[in-house]
Amino acid sequence: MANITKKVSWSSRADDSNATGEGTPLLNGSEGYPRQLSGGSIFQVGRLRTVDMDEGMTSDEDSLRGRPKEIRHSEKLLSLKYESLDYDNSENQLFLEEERRMSYMGFRCLEISRWVVCGLIGLLTGLIACFIDILVEQLAGLKYRVVKENIEKFTTVGGLSISLILWAVLNSAFVMVGAILVAYIEPIAGGSGIPQIKCYLNGVKIPRVVRLKTLLVKVAGVICSVAGGLAVGKEGPMIHSGAVVAAGVSQGRSTSLKRDFKIFEYFRRDTEKRDFVSAGAAAGVSAAFGAPVGGVLFSLEEAASYWNQMLTWRIFFASMISTFTLNFFLSVYHDNPGDLSNPGLINFGRFESNSLEYCLYEIPLFIAMGAIGGLLGALFNVLNYWLTIFRIRYIHKPCLQVMEAMLVAAVTATVSFTMIYFCNDCQPLGPDKAEEYPLQLFCADGEYNSMATTFFNTPERGVRSLFHNPPGSYNPLTLGMFTLTYFFLACWTYGLAVSAGVFIPSLLIGAAWGRLIGILLPSITSSSSVNIWADPGKYALIGAAAQLGGIVRMTLSLTVIMIEATGNVTYGLPIMLVLMTAKLVGDYFEEGLYDIHIKLQSVPFVHSEPPATSHWLTAREVMSSPVTSFSRIEKVGTIVDLLSNTSTNHNGFPVVVNHAAGDEPAKLCGLILRSQLIVLLKHKVFMELARSKLTRRKLQLKDFRDAYPRFPPIQSIHVSQDERECMMDLTEFMNPTPYTVPQETSLPRVYKLFRALGLRHLAVVDDSNRVVGLVTRKDLARYHLGKHGLEELQLAQT
Amino acid sequence: MANITKKVSWSSRADDSNATGEGTPLLNGSEGYPRQLSGGSIFQVGRLRTVDMDEGMTSDEDSLRGRPKEIRHSEKLLSLKYESLDYDNSENQLFLEEERRMSYMGFRCLEISRWVVCGLIGLLTGLIACFIDILVEQLAGLKYRVVKENIEKFTTVGGLSISLILWAVLNSAFVMVGAILVAYIEPIAGGSGIPQIKCYLNGVKIPRVVRLKTLLVKVAGVICSVAGGLAVGKEGPMIHSGAVVAAGVSQGRSTSLKRDFKIFEYFRRDTEKRDFVSAGAAAGVSAAFGAPVGGVLFSLEEAASYWNQMLTWRIFFASMISTFTLNFFLSVYHDNPGDLSNPGLINFGRFESNSLEYCLYEIPLFIAMGAIGGLLGALFNVLNYWLTIFRIRYIHKPCLQVMEAMLVAAVTATVSFTMIYFCNDCQPLGPDKAEEYPLQLFCADGEYNSMATTFFNTPERGVRSLFHNPPGSYNPLTLGMFTLTYFFLACWTYGLAVSAGVFIPSLLIGAAWGRLIGILLPSITSSSSVNIWADPGKYALIGAAAQLGGIVRMTLSLTVIMIEATGNVTYGLPIMLVLMTAKLVGDYFEEGLYDIHIKLQSVPFVHSEPPATSHWLTAREVMSSPVTSFSRIEKVGTIVDLLSNTSTNHNGFPVVVNHAAGDEPAKLCGLILRSQLIVLLKHKVFMELARSKLTRRKLQLKDFRDAYPRFPPIQSIHVSQDERECMMDLTEFMNPTPYTVPQETSLPRVYKLFRALGLRHLAVVDDSNRVVGLVTRKDLARYHLGKHGLEELQLAQT
Repeated sequence: MANITKKVSWSSRADDSNATGEGTPLLNGSEGYPRQLSGGSIFQVGRLRTVDMDEGMTSDEDSLRGRPKEIRHSEKLLSLKYESLDYDNSENQLFLEEERRMSYMGFRCLEISRWVVCGLIGLLTGLIACFIDILVEQLAGLKYRVVKENIEKFTTVGGLSISLILWAVLNSAFVMVGAILVAYIEPIAGGSGIPQIKCYLNGVKIPRVVRLKTLLVKVAGVICSVAGGLAVGKEGPMIHSGAVVAAGVSQGRSTSLKRDFKIFEYFRRDTEKRDFVSAGAAAGVSAAFGAPVGGVLFSLEEAASYWNQMLTWRIFFASMISTFTLNFFLSVYHDNPGDLSNPGLINFGRFESNSLEYCLYEIPLFIAMGAIGGLLGALFNVLNYWLTIFRIRYIHKPCLQVMEAMLVAAVTATVSFTMIYFCNDCQPLGPDKAEEYPLQLFCADGEYNSMATTFFNTPERGVRSLFHNPPGSYNPLTLGMFTLTYFFLACWTYGLAVSAGVFIPSLLIGAAWGRLIGILLPSITSSSSVNIWADPGKYALIGAAAQLGGIVRMTLSLTVIMIEATGNVTYGLPIMLVLMTAKLVGDYFEEGLYDIHIKLQSVPFVHSEPPATSHWLTAREVMSSPVTSFSRIEKVGTIVDLLSNTSTNHNGFPVVVNHAAGDEPAKLCGLILRSQLIVLLKHKVFMELARSKLTRRKLQLKDFRDAYPRFPPIQSIHVSQDERECMMDLTEFMNPTPYTVPQETSLPRVYKLFRALGLRHLAVVDDSNRVVGLVTRKDLARYHLGKHGLEELQLAQT
Repeated sequence: MANITKKVSWSSRADDSNATGEGTPLLNGSEGYPRQLSGGSIFQVGRLRTVDMDEGMTSDEDSLRGRPKEIRHSEKLLSLKYESLDYDNSENQLFLEEERRMSYMGFRCLEISRWVVCGLIGLLTGLIACFIDILVEQLAGLKYRVVKENIEKFTTVGGLSISLILWAVLNSAFVMVGAILVAYIEPIAGGSGIPQIKCYLNGVKIPRVVRLKTLLVKVAGVICSVAGGLAVGKEGPMIHSGAVVAAGVSQGRSTSLKRDFKIFEYFRRDTEKRDFVSAGAAAGVSAAFGAPVGGVLFSLEEAASYWNQMLTWRIFFASMISTFTLNFFLSVYHDNPGDLSNPGLINFGRFESNSLEYCLYEIPLFIAMGAIGGLLGALFNVLNYWLTIFRIRYIHKPCLQVMEAMLVAAVTATVSFTMIYFCNDCQPLGPDKAEEYPLQLFCADGEYNSMATTFFNTPERGVRSLFHNPPGSYNPLTLGMFTLTYFFLACWTYGLAVSAGVFIPSLLIGAAWGRLIGILLPSITSSSSVNIWADPGKYALIGAAAQLGGIVRMTLSLTVIMIEATGNVTYGLPIMLVLMTAKLVGDYFEEGLYDIHIKLQSVPFVHSEPPATSHWLTAREVMSSPVTSFSRIEKVGTIVDLLSNTSTNHNGFPVVVNHAAGDEPAKLCGLILRSQLIVLLKHKVFMELARSKLTRRKLQLKDFRDAYPRFPPIQSIHVSQDERECMMDLTEFMNPTPYTVPQETSLPRVYKLFRALGLRHLAVVDDSNRVVGLVTRKDLARYHLGKHGLEELQLAQT
């Protein structure tokens, strides 16, 4: 069911499992629950939940035959296939016993190992960033040198079309490798990975997102796509890479490699893992932009519900180590070990206060640029949205995806070449050789083609040139043409089946039109004030911020990232105002790019605040009911049957004192998870009716940890007919003190509790503590504020 | 009761109310609850709560006669006199009705006004910082010029003792004014105000901390004490000032001025007010250090339990506006309007990467310096702790406090003069005139006394000189002597009855010994490596960070503040490592300075995490019981009697369905606050038994807001005998959905819920939802991790 409906790259993996011959049956999600991919813990009975399956969705049969047809898509859906992470510890007796046994020194040791893990995360993330950077530089350098030589050869002779073909073929070849890796081996590694990490940090389990294989494909893919000259950056993927590193290191084992180092076993649960993943994401941001504080704020913005001082401090530590590692190894690589001037993959270069100071009356101008950024960003997002819908419907086969990516690579090369060819903007070659690969082309000796500085270069260098090249390096037409073409190229590129980010292209587009504005300003104002507009570099910076803000709509963290990347706090206020304006203007038309992609995946994303006008709703309306619950001592057969019931697929079950007849609510005394029950069944922790063999080994927390996170499916557990008659005592394993709310609680209140504590299940009780419903992530994510007030999304099994 | 025991400046105000003739009876706290200053919502019955009153505490009588004797003090106490803030909205029917009436546009308008308020907070805070800076500069400049002329006059003639006396008298005069303001008018304005703001943001209501009068005294006081040449800074008080501005602006009225502007009425509750105060504190940090991001992180570190993205963004906005305002107006003041180079009150000057780069092998050295900072910080704190105890016992009369402050001022001048006099460290006067007031004294023409650059100057300039003066500006002996004397001066000064901060003195001490290390290093290593130790300025920076970290023990926010103040992200890692080491080493010996002062006040401070080894405890052990509760429809007489009962002084009352006889628990159906009951009684919202006059105006949320935050005491409300027989229906006003936990919930779980949601009362229920206890802030703050495991503090009415 899950695999037949939508085909956006980052969740279409399961669909392709047959093609790659992985051998898992089509309906098995690899995260562990076959036949219950619709997962979730939503109770469908008793509530009207229209599943939008009447039109457009292919039938089960079709998908089984492996030929998905054209797929319709609706935004007004919320998928049930995503499971939630459990940020709230299940404080059952086993857990409490372990915590109580632990001495103060034990807790100290744990704390120290958390620091060690964070240090490792930072170190590895920095190394990966370093590896990517060096390899991209080498490969791209090789490519540019080959093409440059070829162009130079043919410039005088004629026959530049051969150079063009060479360039296009080289690009396509790189991109093909990257696209094949992504499309065939691990689709979730496509794109920047930021939407996926946002979801993970929000508490949604995205299958396979933090696996080692994903990391490998991601790293290889990003190298290929950047070296392939696509309009992409390598910064976004760093965030995803950092997160995978964190998830791997913190668990002290790799399920893919089947190695268990028997360390960090305490961290094998959602709570701890998510904390480390947030540190990893921060380390990734930090390595990408040389912005450790920005990284911390990114993690907080996306992840934090409950602020934890020590955790934040550790996250900061990981970020610092990450940027330092990158800095150090890059300085060694550049044969300049002492010089720590490469804190991040992208380096905006040094903005000196004196050359780039701004005046109070420029602020309205900056704000106007923010508005332009918001408009262009919204346009970008709308175009990309349509494109994504198109891709979901028509380009969902891996081979088509690879072909599209190659096409884009070839087109990018062609467009670049054409632009360079027809551009007559010759600039004198400075003595400092700012250009890495200056293309003379038809320019006079000692001059180079200015368009080539932006097209014939990695995008990072392009951004830096636009920020820092002296006034007069570009003529306005060049910049205008560049903005126009790069805008559409970048828009087309985002969402391809390649690993790549949208940060750098956005910055590049923005820097181009920002610099254009900076150049045009003196000509439209009186000549006396030419002086103050002297340096178009600052407008390039503001434009870059505006465009990026208009596309991704990040606020706090992006401001700090930009401040750190420029290394100049003076620009804080303008950048902040620009980002605010861009977000305000952009939000009026369309959501942020990441939010669009999250929405297209129908992910139950719980925002930090409830919709403003939701005080009308109470827990009674929001909750799912009636609830499937267990008695404290329950028959094994009942448990197996309920867990096997594919139509419900609950993940959490209230435990009640005495199961009343029918749907009569009974007194709540605990909450138990599907995963816990699975482990109990696997270890056959039954109370033998005859009480003959009570010598069975006592189940320990370790057994649960060993099974984490890929708990076996209920179908793989064999329970004999005799065993079905046994009873199981859940008392020791259930969480005896689940959080509850009364039925009359308003939605904002429920929301606040749920979000602040990172809950997965919240029991709703009546005035006698009898459980009448259960609130889960999907119940809250359903409600959102549309243009016409509060809207309710539909839930679907997709 | 509250006023007779401890006399640390910032809470000894009530005791002095008679002296200043404010007219409130001795037992009235100005925060509104006479005869119940012991406030809190702790239930004393049914629990063993030893009050440490047997020895040392003066009797009630004594205090009434206004002659407090020597006062003993115990750290193992937790005062009951502090009330908590309610960060959880009371979602009663009135509130929900209002929220439901409000349209989406209404919420938008609210949101916009929040932004406006934050902008105003930033603007005003920036202006205040600017005002303080300019006035201090003028006054101190005047003083130094006068003294300098005098010294120059007498250097050749002889009779420099006259200059010394002049200097000492000038200092004492300034300080006297400041101390009189603080000691007699508003003691809470003493010190830096950071501990108080920490407490406020933590959720403890510190009386009078955010009043207009406090702000005025604070500003005047800080100007006097800095101009008076004390070893203090003006940065800490900015945080307090920002918080007061925020509390004032956001409420749209001033109770002190008796002006109600009828705006921002929606914000008149603890939740909103605390949010704004955190923005104000951030704006203060931002103005003080030019560190907007550091400000945000400071607020988050101290305040945030529940992360709110929009709030953080607004806080950042306030911070940005604040630093920009300061920057802009200072640039106008310095006749250089375009040059935005004064983002904060303290300006570390520009650290250029190339001149100050560090090598990998220097990092261990930095860490060692961090350890030194931790040790010296711990020493500072221990000394200051003893001094504070001494002050609590003996120096609690305002006149004594003023005299001590004057004494310190005179001693500071004398010591400074002596040091300058006996120091023979002459340095050539540079062409750039780095020194504002160069003292030639006995140096040759064209030279100045090097000791005078640090002593005969505002501390801010001293710090900058130590960071940036070229190598060789100081000789080691000068620095050593300076460190030694300034250390003890600063230690003696902190805690005086003057408004001043400890940041700058700490930085100055650290910079001095850091620079000393930087100078001494080349001499102990081989001469070939002299080159790399060339600039002692970076060691001054590291030393400053180490010393400051060792004293205040802030981590994340301090790192970011230091990074922003230096404007160089390269130093991020060393600064972070240094601060971590300083904290680790320091914490081994003694807590941070602010924590010491908070503890000495017995404030029920709820840390961000529960003690590690507290899984043994459950809600049953932690809670207070039995609970005083009301029925849903309760007799007025019962309510009045319970509220008037001074021995209990509860602030929150569970509302139960039917009051059972005796102490039998009854089913919980709501929670009502003392303040709400007071308003109900004041407006006589009674159900007349005869149901004759049912035309009474319906009580609105506005009535509660008008009374906020100084609700009248129960004693001021007159209820006739007839009225006592009436009934009151609490249904509409109580919070019908209070958060609850079962009795078996472990302390960490209770703690997490309590802290994440910023609760004030948490009801503990049995399995039938009958209320059996109530957990409040004091119940949680009682438990802390001592050197010998979990310790429990005693609760006292002090």
